[in-house]
Amino acid sequence: MTQRQRKRQGLGDHEVQVWQTFFRMQEVLRGRIEQQLQACSGLSTADYTVLAVISGAEDGRLRAYHLGAMMGWEKSRMHHQLTRMSKRGLVERHSGEARAIYVTLTQKGREALTDAAPQHSEHVRQLFINCLRPEQLDQLADISATLLTNLQRPENAGDACTEEE
Amino acid sequence: MTQRQRKRQGLGDHEVQVWQTFFRMQEVLRGRIEQQLQACSGLSTADYTVLAVISGAEDGRLRAYHLGAMMGWEKSRMHHQLTRMSKRGLVERHSGEARAIYVTLTQKGREALTDAAPQHSEHVRQLFINCLRPEQLDQLADISATLLTNLQRPENAGDACTEEE
Repeated sequence: MTQRQRKRQGLGDHEVQVWQTFFRMQEVLRGRIEQQLQACSGLSTADYTVLAVISGAEDGRLRAYHLGAMMGWEKSRMHHQLTRMSKRGLVERHSGEARAIYVTLTQKGREALTDAAPQHSEHVRQLFINCLRPEQLDQLADISATLLTNLQRPENAGDACTEEE
Repeated sequence: MTQRQRKRQGLGDHEVQVWQTFFRMQEVLRGRIEQQLQACSGLSTADYTVLAVISGAEDGRLRAYHLGAMMGWEKSRMHHQLTRMSKRGLVERHSGEARAIYVTLTQKGREALTDAAPQHSEHVRQLFINCLRPEQLDQLADISATLLTNLQRPENAGDACTEEE
């Protein structure tokens, strides 16, 4: 089978099965992590991720644009998320050079992250790290990095709707 | 290091890196798949998954309870999703024996799935299947199945909030 033929066919049974197993796993895992974070800290996974990413940034600040790109979110979704977090006093937005918007954590945001982190790490260990053998963790890291690199290629951006022949 | 010690520690640098790479990958991949589905078919990933799961069920019907369990969704989320899809004429709910609620596809729901499927499969091929070597697909299927099995253990359900010592 040529690469072109392979590209134009529907998915085979095995491919469908791999995709569905992966998709279901991440759906259930996300749901469980979200539920545990909310119950233990009152933060959503989105809140926690924004706090953690900004906290790890150089100078403790990050452009809203880069934050969205790192999380794979569209501009409007990032905007609404940051608006909600600003209203709750977790982050602050500042205007920077060339109309850039920078985001920083407030004291309350830093405390929320510090309070939530130990329990969240424990859940990630219980539901993810401890279930996999060391070589499986390495395999998953490689697979994830490969998929991310592909997702960032310009030809894979956009809607990519074509009429079926 | 004993298993008990390993369980009680925070995450190591490598573990954090694997988790974050995986988490970011699934976040970006979900976002892209959602964006393409919406643009090409007007369906959300949740809509598409519900349609596909019911379509694959024996007799073409599924208990709402089992649908929620398969997708890892809480009861209220499943209820709201099915209410929205009912209003759009994509699914119907029926009362069954022992107060069970069954969900079936309408003709419109079947057509929406049939229309969306080829393009969705093409996106899954482009963003997922074609990026990975056959052995990586097998590794990811194993890893996903292992994580799902662990997620379904009773001791991993619930909020699992504990006070830090």
